Amino acid sequence: MIVVMEPGATQAQLEAVVQKIRDAGLNTHLSVGTERTLIGVVGDSHTKELLRDTLEATPGVEKVVRILQPFKLVSREFRPSGTVVRVGGAAFGDTAVAVVAGPCSVESREQILQTAEAVKAAGATLLRGGAFKPRTSPYSFQGLEEEGLKLLVEARQRTGLPVVTEAMDAHQLRMVAEYADMIQIGARNMQNYPLLREAGRSGKPVLLKRGAAATIEELLLAAEYVMNEGNYEVVLCERGIRGFGNYTRYTLDLSAVPVLKHLTHLPVIVDPSHATGKWRYVEALALAAVAGGADGLLVEVHPDPERALSDGPQSLNLENFNRMMARLRAVAQAVGRGL
Amino acid sequence: MIVVMEPGATQAQLEAVVQKIRDAGLNTHLSVGTERTLIGVVGDSHTKELLRDTLEATPGVEKVVRILQPFKLVSREFRPSGTVVRVGGAAFGDTAVAVVAGPCSVESREQILQTAEAVKAAGATLLRGGAFKPRTSPYSFQGLEEEGLKLLVEARQRTGLPVVTEAMDAHQLRMVAEYADMIQIGARNMQNYPLLREAGRSGKPVLLKRGAAATIEELLLAAEYVMNEGNYEVVLCERGIRGFGNYTRYTLDLSAVPVLKHLTHLPVIVDPSHATGKWRYVEALALAAVAGGADGLLVEVHPDPERALSDGPQSLNLENFNRMMARLRAVAQAVGRGL
Amino acid sequence: MIVVMEPGATQAQLEAVVQKIRDAGLNTHLSVGTERTLIGVVGDSHTKELLRDTLEATPGVEKVVRILQPFKLVSREFRPSGTVVRVGGAAFGDTAVAVVAGPCSVESREQILQTAEAVKAAGATLLRGGAFKPRTSPYSFQGLEEEGLKLLVEARQRTGLPVVTEAMDAHQLRMVAEYADMIQIGARNMQNYPLLREAGRSGKPVLLKRGAAATIEELLLAAEYVMNEGNYEVVLCERGIRGFGNYTRYTLDLSAVPVLKHLTHLPVIVDPSHATGKWRYVEALALAAVAGGADGLLVEVHPDPERALSDGPQSLNLENFNRMMARLRAVAQAVGRGL
Amino acid sequence: MIVVMEPGATQAQLEAVVQKIRDAGLNTHLSVGTERTLIGVVGDSHTKELLRDTLEATPGVEKVVRILQPFKLVSREFRPSGTVVRVGGAAFGDTAVAVVAGPCSVESREQILQTAEAVKAAGATLLRGGAFKPRTSPYSFQGLEEEGLKLLVEARQRTGLPVVTEAMDAHQLRMVAEYADMIQIGARNMQNYPLLREAGRSGKPVLLKRGAAATIEELLLAAEYVMNEGNYEVVLCERGIRGFGNYTRYTLDLSAVPVLKHLTHLPVIVDPSHATGKWRYVEALALAAVAGGADGLLVEVHPDPERALSDGPQSLNLENFNRMMARLRAVAQAVGRGL
Repeated sequence: MIVVMEPGATQAQLEAVVQKIRDAGLNTHLSVGTERTLIGVVGDSHTKELLRDTLEATPGVEKVVRILQPFKLVSREFRPSGTVVRVGGAAFGDTAVAVVAGPCSVESREQILQTAEAVKAAGATLLRGGAFKPRTSPYSFQGLEEEGLKLLVEARQRTGLPVVTEAMDAHQLRMVAEYADMIQIGARNMQNYPLLREAGRSGKPVLLKRGAAATIEELLLAAEYVMNEGNYEVVLCERGIRGFGNYTRYTLDLSAVPVLKHLTHLPVIVDPSHATGKWRYVEALALAAVAGGADGLLVEVHPDPERALSDGPQSLNLENFNRMMARLRAVAQAVGRGL
Repeated sequence: MIVVMEPGATQAQLEAVVQKIRDAGLNTHLSVGTERTLIGVVGDSHTKELLRDTLEATPGVEKVVRILQPFKLVSREFRPSGTVVRVGGAAFGDTAVAVVAGPCSVESREQILQTAEAVKAAGATLLRGGAFKPRTSPYSFQGLEEEGLKLLVEARQRTGLPVVTEAMDAHQLRMVAEYADMIQIGARNMQNYPLLREAGRSGKPVLLKRGAAATIEELLLAAEYVMNEGNYEVVLCERGIRGFGNYTRYTLDLSAVPVLKHLTHLPVIVDPSHATGKWRYVEALALAAVAGGADGLLVEVHPDPERALSDGPQSLNLENFNRMMARLRAVAQAVGRGL
Repeated sequence: MIVVMEPGATQAQLEAVVQKIRDAGLNTHLSVGTERTLIGVVGDSHTKELLRDTLEATPGVEKVVRILQPFKLVSREFRPSGTVVRVGGAAFGDTAVAVVAGPCSVESREQILQTAEAVKAAGATLLRGGAFKPRTSPYSFQGLEEEGLKLLVEARQRTGLPVVTEAMDAHQLRMVAEYADMIQIGARNMQNYPLLREAGRSGKPVLLKRGAAATIEELLLAAEYVMNEGNYEVVLCERGIRGFGNYTRYTLDLSAVPVLKHLTHLPVIVDPSHATGKWRYVEALALAAVAGGADGLLVEVHPDPERALSDGPQSLNLENFNRMMARLRAVAQAVGRGL
Repeated sequence: MIVVMEPGATQAQLEAVVQKIRDAGLNTHLSVGTERTLIGVVGDSHTKELLRDTLEATPGVEKVVRILQPFKLVSREFRPSGTVVRVGGAAFGDTAVAVVAGPCSVESREQILQTAEAVKAAGATLLRGGAFKPRTSPYSFQGLEEEGLKLLVEARQRTGLPVVTEAMDAHQLRMVAEYADMIQIGARNMQNYPLLREAGRSGKPVLLKRGAAATIEELLLAAEYVMNEGNYEVVLCERGIRGFGNYTRYTLDLSAVPVLKHLTHLPVIVDPSHATGKWRYVEALALAAVAGGADGLLVEVHPDPERALSDGPQSLNLENFNRMMARLRAVAQAVGRGL
């Protein structure tokens, strides 16, 4: 950490800053340039991070420049070889690409069973489906709740596919953890800290979706909340950030994949369905994601999108999902992976 | 709502769309142009909204264009004269500008009492202070929790200032509602729907902060969640959206003030402290907000920012807060309001 | 085009709007709903587009909703089978993926010849290199100008690779057109209309890069400027939009590829070098682009990036470019294309 | 400037970096921490800036952190008391707020004379009007060109108001400089470097508008291009950046005003007309801009917006402009300024 003093900072201000740093048990390293005086701060990175705001609020300080990342457990340096998160028979971060597929919402027994069998046949490795749905409008369908969770369990029994589903608060999460194999934290809740902590205590693998305005650093710090509770089974998911376009719902930030793979040991997957909001563009971006190094995909599939109670416009029908999987297999092999 | 058919849509596809609309109890209005066929959808707006995704997922449909806003209770048309939200002796949406001031976090009895008295003396009308703090890093100070709420109550007893504080989940909210006069929903939780519903049932006025990636429409739909539970006492707060600059933490979207005042009857306030992240820019943007029509401000004030446990760099000290209030008084009068 | 009247619009205002539309030679189609009155505008789309602002400025009008796209010549409907742009022996939009490679700037005879031969050997189909450089700072290296153009011609003679290079104003463009095989319009000049018109009159194929803040529609309208002068040989290039991240320089918007392929008949390529600003992420995004349907790539390659006069941090060295090309070949084949 | 070495950098890599820095005539300052080795680079800031890319491309280097701003002439430190730019009898950066008003385009003799007299009567200090218009679509009205410039001169003769108008390339700029009192560089051309240089050589004051995707730093470096040619009469204009909202055309970044006033000595004005694209929101943001410290405004005014050939929806009519000016006068006085 480097403290940059203002051009007109006084000697007394400089000394006060140095004193604060030493009082915290850190060392200083002074560099007096022609235009600015810099103070290098050396020592425990956790202590430095806690001191940062204080120093920035101190008179005479122009800014504080961070040299190291503020995260620890998620950092690639913590586990250089990478993490493989296993969920039932499926795995994220392994050579094979994980494909989580299924409807936005669990709507009925028939719908979820039919979809589960079809995506399994096409090569999906996990089943998704929402029982508690975060919806922008209070007037939209909000999910079947516990009944939906039971139907997901039945679909798992029928197909063997592990089940991923979302929880929106600590109360729901405890219920979800009883049924699901993996708990999804949605993009809107990426910085819902009580929820992240509860997920960290749940003992279940966590699928953490990036918030639409979240920086890479904020996403990693959200994962750090989960890991800080002792749960290291976290998979990150890029699902589109807020952009200025209106041909797609969000802007898929595919560069987040290689950036995250560089910074963290956690597996990284991509959700092209929510990113685009339009089924027409899902296949192209699914192929792109895997070619670009993603460890998996989260894709919305519905047997009859025009009858879906939510997200119909972005759901692949079974025929399109089959087609995507065939093309995906070829791309995955081209980059040395499989499905 | 207008359904735009694809150029190559067949007659059968057109009829299927028309049938779906009629099955939902709505009327259609066909317009066959040289380049596209349009179907106007006439009838209950709620039914139309629910049908929108379905239509967009139907073969032959290019897109569905919404003509009306998807919100109802928050709409200006619902209460053209505007809403005044009263909290203790203070009011939002009245002629006088409301000023909510106080520290980011309640840190100690001395700190909160000193700040409360000072901001009251300077003309603030409500006291803010966090007891449960959403922090980007799990290693940062997380708040005094219930102890903090009790100190806020003591500060209210001492100064008469009504108290605004944040809750991050339903469990916290019930506790906060016992102590606070107004419940804050933070930007990171703007789309935490279980929390919004709980706030709607709390019987307390709600201060709803706009999420960093939230559109105006999403903010209004979040308020609609609260109002849909019967709680009409909602104040909206613009606090900066995610932008590409790095001289301020967020990009304050001040045009949201006149836009919201046009679209909704709810009061609108501005938080220049979180928007900028730097105390140096707070005063200018506070004056700008009030000149631009904001009904109030949310400002972080700390008696000793360099010792603050959170948000020191963006907190005004007491001297700067006094100066801001003096200048604010003049600006408020210039636009026909007061403090 | 649909004109939406305000809820309180008077009959006289409605009639005035209808009159204006008819005066322009267009027909109207009235739809009186319970909440709004809509006026469908039917007729020549060019006339409608010109009338749009006028209608939106007319009293009683809430907004004007456009149904059709405002572009014509670039539209997929204009040439449904797609356009192949041929430049020397290379082609954009054909089955084979075009790879434009070379240094940011032409720096010396040795540097450009060495790079040209190396990228040719690795499979590149065109050579890039800047003679006139747009640089953010006036103190940075600005290019060799005409001398650079002559070196590019020598490199073409040596390798047979057609040459792509940028012009920043009409004067430069006339000079560039005498030497280069394809003229690049850079992202910063995407809405430099005199330059676009000059490019349209140049008789040379044009590589048009998307501006960092440009919407898909603005990019297509910029291409429309070129085509409107009679030059239909335009290739579009996605090179990253302004986002909020700081791990990459821009945010590569890969969804622009399938969106553009859907909307326009023009070929679409991707520049992962400028998008990321870091060579480390170039390969992953190059593979992703081709898997996602891009017709080609624009990649910065330098024999010795640490001695480059510009863009060293984002340039692949020859070894990394070779590696990328080998992996790209496999991905291109996996999606039914070649190099 | 600080060079941060990678955790696994070798001693040879470290020495190579140090050697490069010394070869450039700069000094180094080594700091070996537990997690990273840092190299402070001390010496001439211009040399450092040129070396930055090279160092970032050197093996073993993780990143290069800049401590100082890359601009010089525009910097507040260059002229701490601030610059007043005088144009005829008007001034930017003085106590009085400058108001540049007029139509988007010069459309006819009657239109520009009528507008000039009206805005003068209402208190405007300069007249704006476009003769060369940058239009997103090639099918829109493109301006009266030299004829428009002559009409502006006539309006100046009639009213005494100095004239501001835009040039889009070097050729136009030379013509514009013969007629206008101040040359506008539009947002789309903010990084058109040949144009900036030509403006720097024109001998006329320059009004430089911020590009929609331009950072504060890029705006200041664009001004540096003009100043580097010896022309120090530059006024900066915030006119909205690309955001994700759709209720306004751009997102007015009002925090740019205090940030720029802090970083540079140049005057800063605001254009609420282009920022919002809707006349309804112009007044609120004009008042906000002046309360927030802007040195002036650029406002579109048209005697009959519904007949305007361009920008009708965002133009104030004369009545609304008069109203705005009256309210503005009060706000300007409240912050210690006048009109």
